[in-house]
Amino acid sequence: MKQYAADTVRKQILSVLAAWGMAPERAEITAEVMVDTDLLGIDSHGISMLPMYQRLIDAGKLDTGAEMVIEREGASTAVVNGGHNLGHSTMVTAMQLATAKARETGVGVVTVKRSHHFGAAGYYARIAVDSGQIGLVTSTTPTKTVVPTRGSRPVLGTNPLAFAAPSANADEPFLLDMSTSTVAMNKVKVYDYLSKPLPAGWVLDGLAQPVTDSHAAYSQLREQQHGGLSPLGGTEALSSHKGYGLALMVQILAGALAGATFAPLREPSDPNDIGHFCLVIDPAFFGDREQFAASVSQIVDTLRAEPPASPDRPVLVPGDIERTVRAERLEGGIPLSDALVGQIRDICTHNEAPFHL
Amino acid sequence: MKQYAADTVRKQILSVLAAWGMAPERAEITAEVMVDTDLLGIDSHGISMLPMYQRLIDAGKLDTGAEMVIEREGASTAVVNGGHNLGHSTMVTAMQLATAKARETGVGVVTVKRSHHFGAAGYYARIAVDSGQIGLVTSTTPTKTVVPTRGSRPVLGTNPLAFAAPSANADEPFLLDMSTSTVAMNKVKVYDYLSKPLPAGWVLDGLAQPVTDSHAAYSQLREQQHGGLSPLGGTEALSSHKGYGLALMVQILAGALAGATFAPLREPSDPNDIGHFCLVIDPAFFGDREQFAASVSQIVDTLRAEPPASPDRPVLVPGDIERTVRAERLEGGIPLSDALVGQIRDICTHNEAPFHL
Repeated sequence: MKQYAADTVRKQILSVLAAWGMAPERAEITAEVMVDTDLLGIDSHGISMLPMYQRLIDAGKLDTGAEMVIEREGASTAVVNGGHNLGHSTMVTAMQLATAKARETGVGVVTVKRSHHFGAAGYYARIAVDSGQIGLVTSTTPTKTVVPTRGSRPVLGTNPLAFAAPSANADEPFLLDMSTSTVAMNKVKVYDYLSKPLPAGWVLDGLAQPVTDSHAAYSQLREQQHGGLSPLGGTEALSSHKGYGLALMVQILAGALAGATFAPLREPSDPNDIGHFCLVIDPAFFGDREQFAASVSQIVDTLRAEPPASPDRPVLVPGDIERTVRAERLEGGIPLSDALVGQIRDICTHNEAPFHL
Repeated sequence: MKQYAADTVRKQILSVLAAWGMAPERAEITAEVMVDTDLLGIDSHGISMLPMYQRLIDAGKLDTGAEMVIEREGASTAVVNGGHNLGHSTMVTAMQLATAKARETGVGVVTVKRSHHFGAAGYYARIAVDSGQIGLVTSTTPTKTVVPTRGSRPVLGTNPLAFAAPSANADEPFLLDMSTSTVAMNKVKVYDYLSKPLPAGWVLDGLAQPVTDSHAAYSQLREQQHGGLSPLGGTEALSSHKGYGLALMVQILAGALAGATFAPLREPSDPNDIGHFCLVIDPAFFGDREQFAASVSQIVDTLRAEPPASPDRPVLVPGDIERTVRAERLEGGIPLSDALVGQIRDICTHNEAPFHL
């Protein structure tokens, strides 16, 4: 796959966002978040989303010119309306707001409604870490892909949850960024492409039995109204009710609390109305800031020093893999498939935007 | 198994706590929490803990006469020192504090250090619901039982997480109460007792391979220094790194933030120093309180109405099973094994406490 410098990818994203009429300062932030997501190796959530965003614009569901509005604000809380624009820059503002409130009162909670896709949740959790704080971010998802424990069809989204905390080493924060499903759709797609059997528990059929043929699984996920991705845990025997419960927790925080829609209750013609939830906690209100970061380091260093089950596969902590990929990609570039580059060329042509790839 | 009325169980717990020198108002609350836990069917965390508490007292590690102290307090935050007493009544106070702060500022975060076992985390999350708020509770655990993804030996605890939210029906709150491991030790013990093979992924050996022989698994968990319970997900192929990451999130909130010990860094002679974390959010700061409860009901009712994979096993939501068990036990009593009743008789004799079972 051809590799592109991060700056080139950023420039390309910016040119498309500008052509879509996004305000320059918002477009800068959005491009920055998207490139960072690609640098971390989360390929499904960065520049590869542009074709999906174009489809949303064409369907009249995404308003790239909209302003976000802070509808309500208190000492520790705020409510943001994203105006049906992309979620990236809205969420950067929301997290900055939560961070400022946590600086004053120890805690900040900000909810966002009427939003859209925002890339990877981890980016926003890390904003808290940049000021020495703890960040927790969740989001609803508009697509019904995950089957509840004991259920027969997809009704929940992959409802992500990200949690970040500073360690004593500023370059190595703790960063957990996960969907509450066992895996994302994209992983099944890759196994289908490679004709590799799936681990039993990634995808379930309408009788809650694991589907291990990756072709059958991927075609079921795309075309069938039964079965779906499993909640974290995989099967009921392996406690998928916990992953399912976490998905509902995310739905309650980013959906019910934020005032955003629950996907199964949304009509196809309704706006996506994705909701996000931001929590920031300032450790200085609970003890010494440096002591907290040192304690986080003690925890993660203890784990990294654990004897691994196989000598060539060390015990990692959340954030380690993404940090390695980021260093590699800053050096060697971001790999983009020819198919994706072709789609982006089409978007540029369609919008009369400069093509840079 | 013989069944005992909840009032009898409460009276028995109270008589032991009083003999241990616990202040009457604390003992009342502790007994109430423990009986409620037994009523919900969480048998491993209620009255059956008395023998363990006796061992902690005998080892000089549990101070049942200690007072809790609020060491620091702000508009949205507080830091509590549990004084090495049992965690139950300390946590009830901590959650009441968080609830009061959330009522004023929209959010309350209270941490607890120098605490002990507190039973089931869900009880405390529900305290927020009783005043129409959202509650999130996590706790560290002193025993190393869970092996990190790719690791070869137990280093983490089962680090529980509970989340509760009110629904439109006051008797049916959403209540998720889970360990971040696939299952708790107790479930392996039951399979060992029944000579039933374990689902592959509950217990891993030192090479990160599933152990399915329940006798081998249970004896490994009790006697060996390798392998252990798996984090939620089960195996690395089924994304156990997510359960592992959640266990670390709990450790950071209830341990590093609260200023409590990380079990692997504790010497056997050190106090247990368990830490807890409480978050309460008042939905009235983000919209209408009734609308929020109605949205939660819409979510859970949608799921309960989903067609199940097998007709006789309906789709449930977190809290449903415990509610059913509670109704049964309020009617028919709490089952206690003769072995446990014998142990409690011994405790009563040893402490000259009245025996009521």
